[in-house]
Order: sequence, then structure tokens, then C-alpha cells
Amino acid sequence: MHAKYLVLREGAVASYIPELERVAPDQFGIALATVDGHIYDFGDSGSPFSIQSISKPLIYGLALQDRGRDAVLAKIGVEPSGDAFNAILFDERTNRPFNSMVNTGAIAATSLVCGRDAAERLARILDFLRALCGRPAEIDEAVYLSERATGHRNRAIAYLELNNGMIQGDIEAHLDLYFRQCSVLTTAVDLAFIAATLAKGGVHPVTDERALAAEHVRDVLSVMTTCGMYDYAGEWELRVGLPAKSGVGGGIMAVLPGQLGIGVFSPRLDEHGNSYRGIRVCEELSTRLQLHLLNYRGRTRSALRRTYFGSDMPAKRVRHVAARARLEAHAAAIAVFEFHGNLFFGSTEQAVRRILHRVETRYLIFDLARVTSVDAVAAKLLRELCERLVASGRTARFTGVADEVRERLGLDPSVFAPSAESALEDSEEMLLQSLAGPERNPPAEVPLEEFELVADLDLQELRILSGFLMKETFAAGETMVKEGDPAESLYFVVSGSVDVCLARDHHETRTRLACVDAGNVIGELALLSDRRRTADVIAATMVSARVLAAADVSSIARSHPRIHAKLIAAVGESLSERLRRANAVIASLMR
Amino acid sequence: MHAKYLVLREGAVASYIPELERVAPDQFGIALATVDGHIYDFGDSGSPFSIQSISKPLIYGLALQDRGRDAVLAKIGVEPSGDAFNAILFDERTNRPFNSMVNTGAIAATSLVCGRDAAERLARILDFLRALCGRPAEIDEAVYLSERATGHRNRAIAYLELNNGMIQGDIEAHLDLYFRQCSVLTTAVDLAFIAATLAKGGVHPVTDERALAAEHVRDVLSVMTTCGMYDYAGEWELRVGLPAKSGVGGGIMAVLPGQLGIGVFSPRLDEHGNSYRGIRVCEELSTRLQLHLLNYRGRTRSALRRTYFGSDMPAKRVRHVAARARLEAHAAAIAVFEFHGNLFFGSTEQAVRRILHRVETRYLIFDLARVTSVDAVAAKLLRELCERLVASGRTARFTGVADEVRERLGLDPSVFAPSAESALEDSEEMLLQSLAGPERNPPAEVPLEEFELVADLDLQELRILSGFLMKETFAAGETMVKEGDPAESLYFVVSGSVDVCLARDHHETRTRLACVDAGNVIGELALLSDRRRTADVIAATMVSARVLAAADVSSIARSHPRIHAKLIAAVGESLSERLRRANAVIASLMR
Repeated sequence: MHAKYLVLREGAVASYIPELERVAPDQFGIALATVDGHIYDFGDSGSPFSIQSISKPLIYGLALQDRGRDAVLAKIGVEPSGDAFNAILFDERTNRPFNSMVNTGAIAATSLVCGRDAAERLARILDFLRALCGRPAEIDEAVYLSERATGHRNRAIAYLELNNGMIQGDIEAHLDLYFRQCSVLTTAVDLAFIAATLAKGGVHPVTDERALAAEHVRDVLSVMTTCGMYDYAGEWELRVGLPAKSGVGGGIMAVLPGQLGIGVFSPRLDEHGNSYRGIRVCEELSTRLQLHLLNYRGRTRSALRRTYFGSDMPAKRVRHVAARARLEAHAAAIAVFEFHGNLFFGSTEQAVRRILHRVETRYLIFDLARVTSVDAVAAKLLRELCERLVASGRTARFTGVADEVRERLGLDPSVFAPSAESALEDSEEMLLQSLAGPERNPPAEVPLEEFELVADLDLQELRILSGFLMKETFAAGETMVKEGDPAESLYFVVSGSVDVCLARDHHETRTRLACVDAGNVIGELALLSDRRRTADVIAATMVSARVLAAADVSSIARSHPRIHAKLIAAVGESLSERLRRANAVIASLMR
Repeated sequence: MHAKYLVLREGAVASYIPELERVAPDQFGIALATVDGHIYDFGDSGSPFSIQSISKPLIYGLALQDRGRDAVLAKIGVEPSGDAFNAILFDERTNRPFNSMVNTGAIAATSLVCGRDAAERLARILDFLRALCGRPAEIDEAVYLSERATGHRNRAIAYLELNNGMIQGDIEAHLDLYFRQCSVLTTAVDLAFIAATLAKGGVHPVTDERALAAEHVRDVLSVMTTCGMYDYAGEWELRVGLPAKSGVGGGIMAVLPGQLGIGVFSPRLDEHGNSYRGIRVCEELSTRLQLHLLNYRGRTRSALRRTYFGSDMPAKRVRHVAARARLEAHAAAIAVFEFHGNLFFGSTEQAVRRILHRVETRYLIFDLARVTSVDAVAAKLLRELCERLVASGRTARFTGVADEVRERLGLDPSVFAPSAESALEDSEEMLLQSLAGPERNPPAEVPLEEFELVADLDLQELRILSGFLMKETFAAGETMVKEGDPAESLYFVVSGSVDVCLARDHHETRTRLACVDAGNVIGELALLSDRRRTADVIAATMVSARVLAAADVSSIARSHPRIHAKLIAAVGESLSERLRRANAVIASLMR
């Protein structure tokens, strides 16, 4: 594109002040900055030129920030006037300049910038432009002096506005500020970054500094849409379709909200006062990259990334066999709804609608860990969803919620869980309690015959096996099995529960692989081989266990081969069952 | 909102034709339709009224479809005029009506609708409105007759346009069509659905019928943005920020592209000719639901949903142990890039940039199964990515690609794989071949000592075990093991490969769980217990196997307990290793 349009020599540089006439007319730079901070640029994209009218929407944004929307709207309109940028015309009905993109409105906007004195106001303008662009803003003194010396028309406008009661205060100071703001040096790359900052809701994509509140960015972009390209607005909207602003310095800045910013520099201007090549580059960029804001980019998707059920993917707690059976029958009543991306009305309403549709789900877990933004409406939808669920006797938990989102949701702290895993485990616990009924108290110790590992043994065989078991107890926190040690025994956990952990980084932190309740066996691989332990096992509570030593397994093999064979078969069964479940989880995750 | 604004009695119904004056002035309906076809509505949302000027952008769309963009632009401008909707003013510079939202341009648009005769043109207009709204369009005869009888000003406009050479043909027929199109009956719900169809790029959200090409929808929405609300355009853009159109019948239609459509009906009009309550409802809806098109909804995310590597998640083919070891060392060179959602410049450029960053990845698989749309630019980016990878000696595969996307990508058919699983397996195969070098020919049969199951046996023990093994061969397609049968033997696969399958739906279809190569053992659980087979095993090629009968396992246990113990330990090792890998896959999928 740069080569294609470089040959165009149509148009002339601005000539209303001598300094602009001296600019090399055939300079040509193109830049595109993405909201994640990547820049594509070509040609004279680093060549400085004066920002001129492109400062208008920016300083309008600063005025909005300084005075608030209502105060600014009371002073400056937002209707396109259809007149030239330097026309001396006002909206008589409301006694305001038509909009802030023509000189009348732009001077009024500059007059609204706050500061104790002229120096502070200038410093604030320059600092604001620095934040928008990501590098210090600097004034071209020669352009400024030239503007100041020859800006009679703007002086006339300002005094007319003073006369009409449209602006107040020190007119010469306002004008001086205005001349300086128009003389700030910029480049195509700078403009692309300023545009990308606006595209990112006011936050610079590289420095991450907030330059302007998102609500003011929206207003700035609105005015750019209707008034940014003077009487070329309709054609621009049709052919380019991006909020934009041009300046007589030869710059054009265009914004694709949420995605990117464009900056083009080429000083020759067309009859509308827009950069001749700049307009063509923007049209071709918009067409070739399909950047038009109103292009159809596919329908907004639900913010739900994935939904899984307690029955597909149980918590890592290995419960007593009876509890496991009850969960297996009922855990479809637990669901985890994984949200992702940006949560706003269109994406969240769909998700909420689908969730409300699942009337059979009693325990709902909302995992927001992959969510990148939550606007006020989405927060309200989620809050109302939660309240509605609770009112209908169901249970809702949120997890993975960023602090500022937690505040925005405004929900009771008890609904927040530290992780999806813990929310899942809690939901299983609640479900089990609801199923058990109040009268059923669990026995203090799980009797041996309830362990799956010995399910095939008859009473006589159980009694024989019992004779080999040694009772051991462990205090909460005590290590029962250490990774790397020889596997010399297996444990029937008859009361309490244990954590299976992997030590990481030289034992400084531990990852919990699973939690195992009474009624389960730990270290059963000792039945098959004398391999070493593959994880630490730590008593999570006080634990009472019956221990079978590997040495006794050999004795049993010799003296009671039937018992040994049944135990071996049960371990195989258990391992292959666990493998089957793991594969089911994988299949469910791959969906 | 309905209750809040129902009490407002400001404004008056349109009075330029008697029929409109007879409308009950306090009717009030609100409707919102989502792009997935859900409707929210309240009040008189089903009450019919004449569509009037809301037909203008729609028929403009039909003209674009019938004549093409350039032909229509040659006849009708796109600049806001700042004048009243019925002004008799033209853009003198170009000898065109200013835009298609004022009567001059709207009549010109109607004149461009194709058809052999007036009846066919009317039928096409009505059918087009039916497709947009999802139910048959019907004309209010009384309104039509009233329009026709009193439409002198529009008649004057049409004849002036004929005089100026702006329109051609039978003027009375054009006018008659125009009066009829304005008299079509609609409701707030209809308008919401028409708007939702425009929001969905021209496809009706419920019927799924395409009413208008997406490129024409974009142009229609562009003109609505700059010219849709007459001289309220700037204020509307600031406060509502949605492409919209109002009609003197009391309707307002507003579009949030990609998300939803709004229809409001309340006949009293304000001084701009817009529905008094309608404007207020739209403003409040936009504010409360944050619908402004330029609202910041978070930055566009990369279209990459997840990336995983051959090392995290190997293919389901269980290879010879040596191949497995080589893959484990090198499979990080294989990556699967899962895309999702809508692929356009902003989402795809980020993804492509990240992918190009992974220079160490040699085999790249692009899984598009979760992608909902791919525009022309995204297709080009993916095509260029693929070409670039291939040029640098890397391998790219696409999977999960819809037919129309496949065409749009325009890539060689060889890059498309039927599934991520098969692409992964192929990539592993290519990787192994690149590692093996040309001289290494695999042996015809894998020798017994290379099987992991017997890795701990010494030569003497191996010879003893060999004595128990029976040679068996299977033809390709032959069933070696049947689900549900007793597990009476295990198979050392010494050549060929087998599929492990689950029969589904009464054996009509099979799901392949895994493919197992020579060098692996099938049915090793028979060593631990006599449980039944859990899957079918089918010879994928001609297979040669060494079979160990369960009965012989018992003999070995008695006569050679050390060999038996080593085999048992190896099965335990293998199962727990598979479990460890499955858990690693789960952990990687949960990220």
C-alpha cells in the first residue's frame, strides 16, 4: 500500500500558516498498533509533524474528565454542522458551538481544561497526551509561534464565544493553550498508539497506564463518528467505518474499538482538508483487513466456555465406597460453568439463560478464572442469577473471581470459593448431607468388610487377613508415607482422612493430588511390587489405620494363595477402574 | 421502563395523513431480540402500525442487492443533509439525493428495486420484508390509500428527480410502490427481529434464512449511523450509539451488530419526528444494558482457546517402547493450536503472531472444530501462516474445518486431517521417521525381550516363559478379544497393530479407544484376575501374537513364583504408569 500510494502527488500541504507550508510534502508513513501492544509500521512512520485538529477529540476527552459530561454538554454540542472546520457558526437554539471537532467547539473544550494557571493547564495537557501516546509530548515552537502570530480567525472565534457567553475567563490564555495543543509534535506511530489507547478503553496497550476513563473514551469516539471527518463523514462511515480524526498537519487517526489503532501521515490535503493519501490508505486498510466497525464478525457467543457435571468429573476427594456410590447416582445435580473472555450483556445474557434452563442442577459453580473483563451489566446479571438460584433453594458458588470483579458482583462473601476443586468438593459434601438424612451417623471406624479391596473375601478369609493387620494411628499433619521410600506396607484407613501430595521445589511447597477418606486403602501397589512410593501421604486429620506389611503379603501368598489372588485381582480392578474414570474425564474435557 | 415511560403523554401522533391521526396515541410496546433468537417483550409489542420511514434503510438494502453498491452510490449519496426528512434538497455537486434516509433518496432507492412489472416488484419487496422479519408482510390498505391520495409532496419530489435525471422509468409505479412499502404493517416485535437479522449479518435468528448479504447489511447500518435519526444523529450517537431508524408511525428500530435488535412502538412524536417515548426507552436501554456500540467491552482476545503439545497429550496409538521413548524426548516439537469463536483480523492476527513465535514447534496442528465463523481476512492470515510454515520446512495440518471455510482457506487438500487425533498421530509418525534415519528398518517381529512386561525377567526366566506362549496370527479386521468374554489369555503383539474399540448402539458403530502397535501386550489384566473383557480388540493389520493362557499363569505361579511375581509387578507398574499419564493429561487439559 505504501508503494502504491507513494506515487500519488495530488493535493497540497496546508498553507494557512507559513510553517506548515515548509513541510516536505511527499513524506508518507503508515502505522497500526494492536490492543496487545504490537506495532506494524512502514515508511516515514517516525517522522514528526504537528498534531493540529487531531488534538481536538483528545482535549475534548480531557475536558470531559475535568468537568464531567453534563457540564461539557451544556457548553458544546454534539451535532455535525455540515460546515467547514473553521466556520464561525453556532447552534443558535442552544447557544453552543455545534460540536468539539470544529474550531469553535475545540476552543471551548480547551477553555474547560482545569489548572491553577496557564502553566499548570499546559502541563496537564502535555501529560495527558503523554499518557495517551506512551512517550513525552513536545511542542514545535516554530509552528506554535506561527499559529499564534497568524491565528486571527481563531482569536475572532474566541472573542465571539466570550461575547455570546459560551466561554469564560482569560481568552488570551485559552487561545495560547489552543495554539500550543495544535503544535504538539506527533508521528504516525504516536497516532497509532493514541488510537490503540482509545481502542483499549483508555488504557495504553504497552505502558498499561490509564489515560482516560472508558466512559469518556466512548463519548470521544461517538463525536469522532459523527463529526470527525467534517463533510466527508457519511462517505468515511460507509467506506472506512471507524471513528477517526484528521488534522491539517497531514495526520489521520482511526480507532477500531477493542482491536487496534491506525495512524497515517502524508501532508498533502484533499478538498475536505483531509490527508489525500491518508484517506486512501485508511479505505484500503479497512477493506483489506475488514476493519469496518459494522462488519459482521460473527454473532456474539455465550460467555460459557464449558459446562461439566459432578458426575463427569468428581472432586479429588476419594470418599468411602458408599458415599462414592451415592455421588455417582446423584452428582449430575452438581455443575461447573466455566466462563471465559469478556462478560457484557450480549455474552452474559445468553449464558445466564442457558444456566437457568438447567432446572435439574441443584449445586451451581461459576468458574470465572478465564474471564478477562466483567462490565457492570454482566455483574448485575450474575448477581441476579445467584439471588434467583438461592431463592429457589439452590446453591451457587463463584470461583476464580478477580478482586475488583468480586466488589462489582456485590455478593455475600460466603458464595466465593478459593478454587473450582474446593467448590466441587463442598458441593459434593452438601449433596451427600442432603441425601443422608439427619439420623445416619457415620460409624467411628469403617469396618474391614466395607473396604472394596476385600469385597471378594468371605468371612473366614477376612478373619485370617485381620490377623495380619497392625493397628496404627497418626496425628494430623504426620507423614504416613514418603515419596521415594520403599513400599513396605499398605494402609486400610479406618477413620480420618489423608492427603496425597507431591513435594515440589525441594519440599518447599506441596501439590495435593487427592484427599482420601476412611474406607479406602493407601499404597495398595505394595501388593504387586516392591517399587518405591510415588507420592507423600500425610494425615489430614487424626487417622486410624490397619497396616498390612509387604513381608506379610508374601506369607499370605504362600499360606493362603486364594486370599492373595483375590487381593491382587482387587488391586488390578481398582487400578483399571481408576484408569477408566480418568479416561472418561479426559473424554469429557476434550469435548 | 414500560411503567416509567407509560405516564409520559408528550408529543402528538403524525397528522400528515388522516389515517395516522386515528391511531390510539398511548400505545406502548418494547421488544428486544437476541441474535440467538430469544425475544424479550412487554406492553403493546404485538400491536400493528405502519412501518413508514423504517422501510427506508431496508429497501435501500434491497436496492444494493439488486443493483450492486456502485450503481446505487452513483444514484444516491450517503452524507447527512442536516435537513428535514421531507426536504426537497439535493446534493448539487453530484446531482444526487443526499442520502437514502430522507424522502428524496428513499424514493430513488425504491425506483431501483428490480422486477418485470409493478406486481413483481411489490411481491419482491414484501418477500424481502418477510425474510427480514420472519413472518409474512402485509399492507394496511387504508394507510396506503391515504398516503397515495395525499402524498403530493412525494409526488413532486419524484417528478423533480425525474426532471433532474436522478431516477428513470414509470414515476407513478415507483411512487405507488413507495406508498405501499411505507404502509406495511409491523409491530415492536417485528422490528426487533428485523433489527436482530441485521445484527446477525442478514440472517434471521430464528428461521436462519439469509435475507441480505452481509456486505449490504454493513452499508445499510453505515447509512443508518450517520443519517438514520435526522438532525438528532449526533445526540443519538452519543446517548444511544446504535445504528437506528425511526418512522412517523411511532416505531424505532435499533441494531447492536453481532448481539441484538430493539423495536419500540409509541405513536406520539417529538419535534424531530421521532417517537417521544421510543427515544427515551432506547436511551435507557442503552445505558442500563451498556449497549452503546462504542462501549469498551474488553479487548478482543486471541482466537486461540488452548495450545497443547505432543509431549503433554500423545496420540492414542500405543507404540513400541523404543518409539515411545523417542516420542517422549521429542514430542514437544508437535503442537495442537485449538481455535475458537469468531475469526477476524483482531482475533486471528494475535493468534498467528503467537504461533509464529513458537519457532521450536516443527509440526503444527490447527484445530478449528470450535470456530464459529472465519472471515476473508482471517482465512488469508491462516493461509499465509500455513504457506510460511511449509516454506520454512515445517508441517501444518488443519482439522475441524467446515466445508465453506475449507474453500475460503484455499489450501492444498493434503493439509486437512479428519481429526486432531489423526493429525497428532500422523505428526508423531513423521517425527519418528525424521528421528530414525533411513537405515533403520524395524524388525519383522518384535523379540520377546523388548516387551516392557518382561523387562525384569532374566534370560533363563524368559526362556521358561517362552515355553508357555502359543503363536497365533490374526487377519486384518479379525476380532481378537470380545467385550464381555472371560479374560482367558493375554497377547504379546509381535507384529502388526490392533485397535481397542467400544461397541456402541448394539454394535452398529465402534469408538476406537486406542491403537496398539507391536511391542505391547493386550489383555494383561488377565494376569491379575479372571474379570471379563472391557473392550473389543480387533486386528488393524495382519497381526502375529504370542498368547499366554490364564490357565498357564496359574501354573507359572505355582512352578515359578518369581516369574509370576515379576509379571504381576510389571502389570501394576504399567497400570499405574498409565494412570499417572492420564492424570497428567487431565492436569494439562484443566489449564
